[in-house]
Amino acid sequence: IESKLPDVGTTIFTVMSKLAADTGAINLGQGFPDFNADPALLDLVSQAMAQGHNQYPYMPGIAPLRAAISDKVASLYGRRYDADSEITVTSGATEALMATVLCAVQAGDEVVVIEPCYDSYLPSIRLAGGVAVPVPLRAPTQADPYYRVDWQKVRDAITPRTRLLMLNFPHNPTGAVLTQADLDTLEDIVRDTRVLLSSDEVYEHIVFDGQPHVSLASRPALAERAFVISSFGKTYHTTGWKIGYCCAPKALSAELRKVHQFMVFTVASPMQHALATYMQDASHAANLPAFYQAKRDRLARGLAATKFKALPCPGTFFMLADYGAISDLPEAEFSRWLTLEHGVAVIPVSAFYRQPAAPASNHQIVRFCFAKQDATLDEAIRRLQSV
Amino acid sequence: IESKLPDVGTTIFTVMSKLAADTGAINLGQGFPDFNADPALLDLVSQAMAQGHNQYPYMPGIAPLRAAISDKVASLYGRRYDADSEITVTSGATEALMATVLCAVQAGDEVVVIEPCYDSYLPSIRLAGGVAVPVPLRAPTQADPYYRVDWQKVRDAITPRTRLLMLNFPHNPTGAVLTQADLDTLEDIVRDTRVLLSSDEVYEHIVFDGQPHVSLASRPALAERAFVISSFGKTYHTTGWKIGYCCAPKALSAELRKVHQFMVFTVASPMQHALATYMQDASHAANLPAFYQAKRDRLARGLAATKFKALPCPGTFFMLADYGAISDLPEAEFSRWLTLEHGVAVIPVSAFYRQPAAPASNHQIVRFCFAKQDATLDEAIRRLQSV
Ligand SMILES: CSCCC(=O)C(=O)O
Ligand SMILES: CSCCC(=O)C(=O)O
Repeated sequence: IESKLPDVGTTIFTVMSKLAADTGAINLGQGFPDFNADPALLDLVSQAMAQGHNQYPYMPGIAPLRAAISDKVASLYGRRYDADSEITVTSGATEALMATVLCAVQAGDEVVVIEPCYDSYLPSIRLAGGVAVPVPLRAPTQADPYYRVDWQKVRDAITPRTRLLMLNFPHNPTGAVLTQADLDTLEDIVRDTRVLLSSDEVYEHIVFDGQPHVSLASRPALAERAFVISSFGKTYHTTGWKIGYCCAPKALSAELRKVHQFMVFTVASPMQHALATYMQDASHAANLPAFYQAKRDRLARGLAATKFKALPCPGTFFMLADYGAISDLPEAEFSRWLTLEHGVAVIPVSAFYRQPAAPASNHQIVRFCFAKQDATLDEAIRRLQSV
Repeated sequence: IESKLPDVGTTIFTVMSKLAADTGAINLGQGFPDFNADPALLDLVSQAMAQGHNQYPYMPGIAPLRAAISDKVASLYGRRYDADSEITVTSGATEALMATVLCAVQAGDEVVVIEPCYDSYLPSIRLAGGVAVPVPLRAPTQADPYYRVDWQKVRDAITPRTRLLMLNFPHNPTGAVLTQADLDTLEDIVRDTRVLLSSDEVYEHIVFDGQPHVSLASRPALAERAFVISSFGKTYHTTGWKIGYCCAPKALSAELRKVHQFMVFTVASPMQHALATYMQDASHAANLPAFYQAKRDRLARGLAATKFKALPCPGTFFMLADYGAISDLPEAEFSRWLTLEHGVAVIPVSAFYRQPAAPASNHQIVRFCFAKQDATLDEAIRRLQSV
């Protein structure tokens, strides 16, 4: 069999989690909590099962969940998506992203992605027959310690053949967030183009230092051409349930659903019922920034006593750290070595770049996930001190 | 946005279930039970959640579930798939089918499908850039009342460009099953070709009249080139959990997983843990034929007192029935009318043919799902008597 994805191996997240499990290392790699979800949420799933919600739910998601999503988005970002025709419940953000690309990108269309990017983006584009056009994030400098979008580069990358621009803020893996000024520029760039937008906002509730999340849903001129994607996994500590959603104008949602219905048809019914009820209490999401900011700061303080230089983290539950230059050692090797020799699994940032050709960088930049119990973080820091 | 799937609307199963829900009709359309799953299975899910199994499971499925699937397939069909490299847990059979097509079919490749076929097949092929080549099932005759594969037609349809032949037995919607002689012929047809096989066997445990299920996994010469797909939804009355799997030789599984990991990444962790335990008791599946055969016979007896002529049903929980000829009335209209006027929702068999051009037939052939409580079947039959 000739591979459709010849450059693709097993996703780095699975590789590192398996290595951590096999070696007993502390897993600060793949992004998931090492603590359990709220027992009240788990009870709601049990109740839904007992009530018989174990058969095919409505293909785009059950009505109360779509209504709750519509209310949440309206109250936070000011846009009212029609629950019937503009919201689709998906098998996590991953499915929403793949369905977006498969429904929007025709063979030969160009798709602009911001590198580093999540490792599903480039294979999705390839499966659709599209052409990925990566644009690098601007790296931090002494004067400005944040990763930022280089909008001039985005503007230059857009051609008449560009069909989709894929965004993801708060950004995995760098933690970068967007500002209102970014949206102003983006509006200007896409005006008078045929460019659609996908906006993976799964870390929408994990933005720090008192800042609000800047959603593409909040700007009519962007929302009208955007697939705005989120997920419950990162918000409610249920990454293993694989429930996400996509908000998009009716015409875009109709195309997304055509693909969704044949990709997975629908997603786990008991969880949908539980989440519809649990979402009624907005405090769960509202408490998240403080909860994770404490962990972010704990990790940053800990890393200060190691050779890892933490980069600023305005959002997400990931922190990048720079170990400095080790010439001729690929980042993936450094991450493996860290796991095997020091018992801490991380994700090499090179995994978020085109494969197999990662960008030449002599710096070892790794990603730590801090969605962990304090004791886990403390023990990882202890181990990292001897690196 | 130009549609990638211009001929596709909302799947007929969702359309008819919604119509049934909106009008209060008895829903014998979409294939799902109207009774609950075993409380013992539901308890296992609750236990798994309490134990913290709510985070990303291993991408191809948790080890105990893959081991249990391997054991089951080995004991029933005599082939031992390696749990590590040859079994992938998917978001139902639907995801397994889409992933199979996306990983195996290159642009321009031909894919032979047996019509009538499940409504996801043709759109999946289209999304992969493949060319569908439909081959009709041989319709029942007076002398032979069963739908059968016309292997000569399959042989004739295969060309050097054929990459995949998609099978589904026990067959939805006709209930047709394969025999050992069918597999002999199939072996002969694919020998010396590059044709891969997908075999959707989700009704493997619903075969009647004491017959065993004939799985492609049982024939080495077929299994070596086959994606053998099944699901827990139909077997354990949990269609809304969306957990299925694909068994395929290592090289094929590797390609399938490359796509799976970026389509959905993985599937609901608590359900995977519950199913791994529940599968240990083989009696649940072993009791299914008798359970559904009683319902099949109840429905057939009931239909005998109506104008609907039931066709034989060797497998699945679907029964076709022929209402006879009504000239100029499309089957979809007849099904709508039956739902609105007589309060019984069914699926028009035309939905399993190429759209929009369904084959010219002046017979109204509809599909009844009999995975229903006896009282539901009895009330439906009562209503159908006045049609
Ligand atoms: C789907 S596994 C990856 C989870 C995640 O978002 C990450 O670790 O970056
Ligand atoms: C995925 S909805 C369709 C369920 C089913 O297999 C059927 O009704 O044919």
